Amino acid sequence: MFSQSLPISSEGGHSSFQNNIPDPVTSGNELPTFKFELEKSEGRVLEGSYGKEATVEQLPISKGIAGVSMRMEPGVMRELHWHATAAEWAFVTEGRVRTTVIDPQGCCETNDFEPGDIWYFPRGHGHVIETLGDQPCHFILVFDNGYFSEFGTFSISDWIGLAPPRLLAKNFGLPPEAFEHLPKGEVYFAKGKIPPAIAAPPLQGWKRPPLTHKYSLLSQKPYEVFTGGLEWRVDGSQFPISTTMTGVVLEMEPRALRELHWHPNAAEWQYILSGQFNVTLFGSKGRWREETLNQGDVGYIPQGFGHSIENLGDQTARILIVFNSGHYQTIDLSQWIAGNPTGILATNFAQEPSVFEKFPHKDVFLTK
Amino acid sequence: MFSQSLPISSEGGHSSFQNNIPDPVTSGNELPTFKFELEKSEGRVLEGSYGKEATVEQLPISKGIAGVSMRMEPGVMRELHWHATAAEWAFVTEGRVRTTVIDPQGCCETNDFEPGDIWYFPRGHGHVIETLGDQPCHFILVFDNGYFSEFGTFSISDWIGLAPPRLLAKNFGLPPEAFEHLPKGEVYFAKGKIPPAIAAPPLQGWKRPPLTHKYSLLSQKPYEVFTGGLEWRVDGSQFPISTTMTGVVLEMEPRALRELHWHPNAAEWQYILSGQFNVTLFGSKGRWREETLNQGDVGYIPQGFGHSIENLGDQTARILIVFNSGHYQTIDLSQWIAGNPTGILATNFAQEPSVFEKFPHKDVFLTK
Amino acid sequence: MFSQSLPISSEGGHSSFQNNIPDPVTSGNELPTFKFELEKSEGRVLEGSYGKEATVEQLPISKGIAGVSMRMEPGVMRELHWHATAAEWAFVTEGRVRTTVIDPQGCCETNDFEPGDIWYFPRGHGHVIETLGDQPCHFILVFDNGYFSEFGTFSISDWIGLAPPRLLAKNFGLPPEAFEHLPKGEVYFAKGKIPPAIAAPPLQGWKRPPLTHKYSLLSQKPYEVFTGGLEWRVDGSQFPISTTMTGVVLEMEPRALRELHWHPNAAEWQYILSGQFNVTLFGSKGRWREETLNQGDVGYIPQGFGHSIENLGDQTARILIVFNSGHYQTIDLSQWIAGNPTGILATNFAQEPSVFEKFPHKDVFLTK
Repeated sequence: MFSQSLPISSEGGHSSFQNNIPDPVTSGNELPTFKFELEKSEGRVLEGSYGKEATVEQLPISKGIAGVSMRMEPGVMRELHWHATAAEWAFVTEGRVRTTVIDPQGCCETNDFEPGDIWYFPRGHGHVIETLGDQPCHFILVFDNGYFSEFGTFSISDWIGLAPPRLLAKNFGLPPEAFEHLPKGEVYFAKGKIPPAIAAPPLQGWKRPPLTHKYSLLSQKPYEVFTGGLEWRVDGSQFPISTTMTGVVLEMEPRALRELHWHPNAAEWQYILSGQFNVTLFGSKGRWREETLNQGDVGYIPQGFGHSIENLGDQTARILIVFNSGHYQTIDLSQWIAGNPTGILATNFAQEPSVFEKFPHKDVFLTK
Repeated sequence: MFSQSLPISSEGGHSSFQNNIPDPVTSGNELPTFKFELEKSEGRVLEGSYGKEATVEQLPISKGIAGVSMRMEPGVMRELHWHATAAEWAFVTEGRVRTTVIDPQGCCETNDFEPGDIWYFPRGHGHVIETLGDQPCHFILVFDNGYFSEFGTFSISDWIGLAPPRLLAKNFGLPPEAFEHLPKGEVYFAKGKIPPAIAAPPLQGWKRPPLTHKYSLLSQKPYEVFTGGLEWRVDGSQFPISTTMTGVVLEMEPRALRELHWHPNAAEWQYILSGQFNVTLFGSKGRWREETLNQGDVGYIPQGFGHSIENLGDQTARILIVFNSGHYQTIDLSQWIAGNPTGILATNFAQEPSVFEKFPHKDVFLTK
Repeated sequence: MFSQSLPISSEGGHSSFQNNIPDPVTSGNELPTFKFELEKSEGRVLEGSYGKEATVEQLPISKGIAGVSMRMEPGVMRELHWHATAAEWAFVTEGRVRTTVIDPQGCCETNDFEPGDIWYFPRGHGHVIETLGDQPCHFILVFDNGYFSEFGTFSISDWIGLAPPRLLAKNFGLPPEAFEHLPKGEVYFAKGKIPPAIAAPPLQGWKRPPLTHKYSLLSQKPYEVFTGGLEWRVDGSQFPISTTMTGVVLEMEPRALRELHWHPNAAEWQYILSGQFNVTLFGSKGRWREETLNQGDVGYIPQGFGHSIENLGDQTARILIVFNSGHYQTIDLSQWIAGNPTGILATNFAQEPSVFEKFPHKDVFLTK
């Protein structure tokens, strides 16, 4: 029951300390770009499968969170690996996926995922990802560390290929010849049979962990319904293993606006699932930037920075948003204003108090 | 009830990690200055109101904590703003003050303060500060991040002045013209009517947070009374919202000494409320520094460094001390010595054991 | 009861953030050395007593943990001191030792140690270490900060030697002359009488802390017994005050192997108690390094890096291992493989599933 005692991070984990010593990327007189065209980037391709990444190398502002778009053909597997420097949160966009993950108590879990499902693997836990069925799959991986990539992913074939056969033989109680035919370099994507419809038991038999790694986000009733759209949301209170990350999907009608707001406790990572959005960023001291994000583009909002998201298209569109904290927190501009009496607003803006009677008397969140 | 589950920091928050990679400012053969004449500095002035700050720019040793001295004329308001990079702790020295603060649950609280009262706003929570009544007010703001200032304060007028009226109109469900006459730049200090004696309800009506942001420190019975002075103290155990900071006021008679001691878990920020003090700093490896701090001066003691505070004047005087941890911890030299048998002390100092029988058999803390 | 509320760190404390911004030492195309011949180094010697240290200066990879080998002659004392930047964990290898430590509540504890016993002093708590009896003692100190040494150790004689006698006189209520004959510089090692067999009470009388600082590791039944060796282990669940560190002693028969594994939540610091070991390090991206560690050598494994430990000698030998987390976590390669069905392994390694039926169906941990 070890994992249940882990506290949910409310301080934005890694980003807290990064903001103490100011990040030179966001400390100039101009705000840097916060957009990266992830799906237009080249990535790492093996036949029809690929991984494309957005880290501080591609998007220097994204110190707190990195992401990967991964597509895999039928029969393809992202081989067994772990991340030494980050937890992994994922959202399935197309096809069907199976993961198998092990934890430090030796518990393992196999889960099958469909579009709209998410997973969470704590930092350093070993896992493998397989395409299920005869169609390709596509999913977005999000890591609570913008530097996760470089020297942060440890693959089993890389390790076993480097270890002397003599050592492996002793490790597993097998003759050295047993390791002669194993791959010598990192496999990364492996191709084999399509996995069985029902997951086979692991060698050790089933020994399931106390907390599941799977949450079906889009099959839930929306967290909230607005004039102009829907919000699905999952943080550590619904999905207890996800102590360091929170996810949101916004479905927004044409011209709908996720209003001006900020997150006191977390940085935000955005991936455009469909459509075209205008994202604004307010960085204090007169610094303002707007960018247009299209399907497949990534955006990043530093912890505590003001921002808004608007559907520019003429179709209902969706955006995936992930935070590097297990607690969801937002302060919306309309909510903030509604939390003050008109007299304060009048003085602040040098207006008559009656001007502010017309402002919303409650949180707007999403509108059109 | 969200905030109640936040843990109280016992590790000195930001300062923990800063001490892991040594700070070049405190890693030389000489200790740097730990004093800044805050009230003699220029600051940001608007008519009779001002904010003067002590950050790493003015006082490079103060990595863990920054401070601001703020004076406001009657009818003046420090406009709605938030700090992306720090929590705010404050102590009122003169006049009367009103604050209104919002949290991520949409709860708002308005509090009125008199001299000796304190407030605490968690990192990123939006707030506004008003002078109450027809007299100026003065208060000391303390932040749990020595770098808080540069690009760390987000003002509502700056944000609304930058956002396109079209966006604001949609945000608030109002015509674009509603925003035409709002200020175009950051207001910082606004001047208006003197606030009503009884705070008006916010637009949304009262919806109070589970934990109050106010604590009346000096109206309490002192935490402890000594020969030579008094101590008032408030940490997270008395003031639960204050998870990252602790405050102390020492009232010391002429020649009184807050003895040699150190804080294992926090850095210390000092502000001289009245009088003149000698502060000593011990930095290991033969490094020692003394400075004289006068009324309105600021001092800073890195986490774990030895120090003492002595009233040099011929009047009873007061010093405000703030720590970047929600737990108060001190180890005093007299207490440490009293915690050892005379035999150990004899060997350590190459003396007869009887020499140490004369030393105090309990904690001194404050004496004269 | 303050200390009991401290959370046990499960995130590897300092090492978490160090891994977010990549360490240049481990970010090159080649893995750096992870070995330092501690006992062959010179250290700080006073007659027959010495302290030899392994910090980032001697072993640049060891950012998260530092260590010291200390030997003291009979009658010698490591004087009263504290560490501003690290907690201290220790393991006694020879002779008998007494420690006296004070905490911020003014509680003090005196403990006597024999080989195989450990202590833990939280960051910043004042302590003294004495040789007991007429034989020398030797112990290994481990700190949860690879930078702990430089300007991180504060000695009482250094402090009192720098403070003006006038100040000390007031501090202790004694005449200035009482301090005239005290040492003027740092004593470090003091030499005096052999301490009494039964510890004398401190000046203030006994006032014991809620949590003890001592744990007798090797007098416990081993945590686990394997074909090929034994493991003793102590983390915060057995030794509650040790919130930031965990210790292990492995006793390994000739040719025994602590299998390929990694620690998701902590860096590892190794000290060879006896014999000769081969340690392998896997650093992702084709990076591999092996080193031979002999008795008295130190090794370091960054958080999340793969590694193994093998007894190369023809004698049963012991290694001391310390982690910078209060929770022990490991994922072993055999356990990971056993947590997957053969079909996944077959695809990953391009083999027939039957190949993996021969692999262990449970965790190996230690074998020969």
